[in-house]
Amino acid sequence: MPPAPLINEQWIYCKRPDGPVGPQHYEHRTVAIEPTVAANEVLVEARYISVDPYMRIQQAARDTYDVPHPLGIVQRAGTVGQVRASGSERFRAGDWVLGYGGWQRFQRAHADELQKLDPEEAPVTTALGVLGMPGRTAWFGLMDAGRPKPGETLVVSGAAGAVGSLVAQFGRRAGCRVIGIAGGARKCRFLTETLELDGAVDYRAWPDAAALATELRRLAGGVDVYFDNVGGWITDAVIPLIKRRARIVICGAISEYQGGLDQPELGPRLLPHMLYQRATIQGILSRDFLHRMDEMKAIVAPWVQRGEIVFEETIIDGFRELPAALNSLFEGANLGKLLVRI
Amino acid sequence: MPPAPLINEQWIYCKRPDGPVGPQHYEHRTVAIEPTVAANEVLVEARYISVDPYMRIQQAARDTYDVPHPLGIVQRAGTVGQVRASGSERFRAGDWVLGYGGWQRFQRAHADELQKLDPEEAPVTTALGVLGMPGRTAWFGLMDAGRPKPGETLVVSGAAGAVGSLVAQFGRRAGCRVIGIAGGARKCRFLTETLELDGAVDYRAWPDAAALATELRRLAGGVDVYFDNVGGWITDAVIPLIKRRARIVICGAISEYQGGLDQPELGPRLLPHMLYQRATIQGILSRDFLHRMDEMKAIVAPWVQRGEIVFEETIIDGFRELPAALNSLFEGANLGKLLVRI
Repeated sequence: MPPAPLINEQWIYCKRPDGPVGPQHYEHRTVAIEPTVAANEVLVEARYISVDPYMRIQQAARDTYDVPHPLGIVQRAGTVGQVRASGSERFRAGDWVLGYGGWQRFQRAHADELQKLDPEEAPVTTALGVLGMPGRTAWFGLMDAGRPKPGETLVVSGAAGAVGSLVAQFGRRAGCRVIGIAGGARKCRFLTETLELDGAVDYRAWPDAAALATELRRLAGGVDVYFDNVGGWITDAVIPLIKRRARIVICGAISEYQGGLDQPELGPRLLPHMLYQRATIQGILSRDFLHRMDEMKAIVAPWVQRGEIVFEETIIDGFRELPAALNSLFEGANLGKLLVRI
Repeated sequence: MPPAPLINEQWIYCKRPDGPVGPQHYEHRTVAIEPTVAANEVLVEARYISVDPYMRIQQAARDTYDVPHPLGIVQRAGTVGQVRASGSERFRAGDWVLGYGGWQRFQRAHADELQKLDPEEAPVTTALGVLGMPGRTAWFGLMDAGRPKPGETLVVSGAAGAVGSLVAQFGRRAGCRVIGIAGGARKCRFLTETLELDGAVDYRAWPDAAALATELRRLAGGVDVYFDNVGGWITDAVIPLIKRRARIVICGAISEYQGGLDQPELGPRLLPHMLYQRATIQGILSRDFLHRMDEMKAIVAPWVQRGEIVFEETIIDGFRELPAALNSLFEGANLGKLLVRI
């Protein structure tokens, strides 16, 4: 008797949002799949599904760093799961794996698309966080593009988020004074008390860029490195504070993702500051450093193993919650890496 | 009998402009000076006085790359003149020299502040242009910050100006396809016929950034290197056309100098493009490359001597014309380097 079919639940991306994203842009679908595998094929059951700000960029109507995410297919996403059936001798049922299975319960993957995780080495969820894409982005974005020097002042926006909270800690280790910007008192306490940063600014406490800039100047003085995850008016406040030969790393513009990518918002012109201070701006994407993952892990994994790095996670339970979880990123609900547990 | 005193004419910068600059921001003063010199002192009579866009930056009310130009002193400027009297054995009456004498007929300088020019080697005015500050800015801005590669597309704004016209030619020599942006049909003919660029766009022929971008896309395709002298809406049109790993060199923002530096104009947010294309923006100032002047001259001076570089000059006659000449830069009146001949 053949094994009973499995029920695969999927979130199909079916409508481009032009503002906040939510369940209305997805179709929830269930399909029966056979639990058998071909040679070199692996069937993976997702345990943790990633929700990341970049997903909303890919939902812009125009090309961004890629063509827009196609409609009518499973929402793409990084996933950590367990092997249910394996046609590859490299994987056995029960193995933990990192994949790019998207928002669905079961993924069929070629063995080459999966990476085995050792739960003894580090919690498996770190493969979606500090030892995964966000960690790589933070590490190379800061180290390669930001080039921090001891004694310099690093300002990080989105500092309580998955990437920002790591950048802030990497910056402290590089000898920088680190000031974090985040939304709300709870996140700011996290920055100063848990991450032990040199200062934190709650942008929600300030009415506009000028007021925020005044507070930042009071706390930070000038800015040598600005690691920007948010863009918009927060960045408007930081850039006029840059010092000679400052490095600005554009890692994200989360404040603009809910529609501002298709119809750019207006803001004060900032490029003359680049001239005055002979500063640089560099955009970075995690994919540019994929081939250097080992280099990052060789340094950061021991810190993780020794408990020297805080890698906060916000975990939401339930496959049904995925679209709302994605939207919550833009409402600033998460501390650290946001994951949905299945 | 002591020699008769000389009459020194000066333009004293006495009022900050908040829009176009002109004679109303200067006081014309005449003072008698003794034609005698102390040891190591040199008295120089100006023959050519420079007017440059950076002067208007220094007139901003706020700090820019420096504190604002002080009021009540002679307008600072580069000058080419002839020695009238010398207390230094390094200079003799009649020698041509480059100095920073400002807007006045006579300058007293320490011999160390002057650089002797050989009129046989190159026209003396080139010390204020292709072999001087604008040449250095163009050379290092393009080569160091722009890093052009053969086969790439270079777009230059302000391409008919002192710096832009050199950048365009240096870019051609580096093997780039070069598209120049300038205002008016005459300048565009200069770009395609005299400089033999691959294309020219008259920004005045297009009503807005979107229309200009369409024309630029038609001509240039994508942009690998953008050398920006103008900022504002022209830059708004170029940045969305950048290609992967583009380099944007911010050398000036001449469209913003007539007031936009104190109260920044609003424009569409451009930083997300840096992210999508993993591009860089770098601000440069000529002073950063002062110590490398010889390096530039070793390469560019032979091109000048062999007549392989076009170094257009727009010369206005008369000391009285200096303030109006400065303003004319922002009206786009000049082709190449603007000089006032005394």
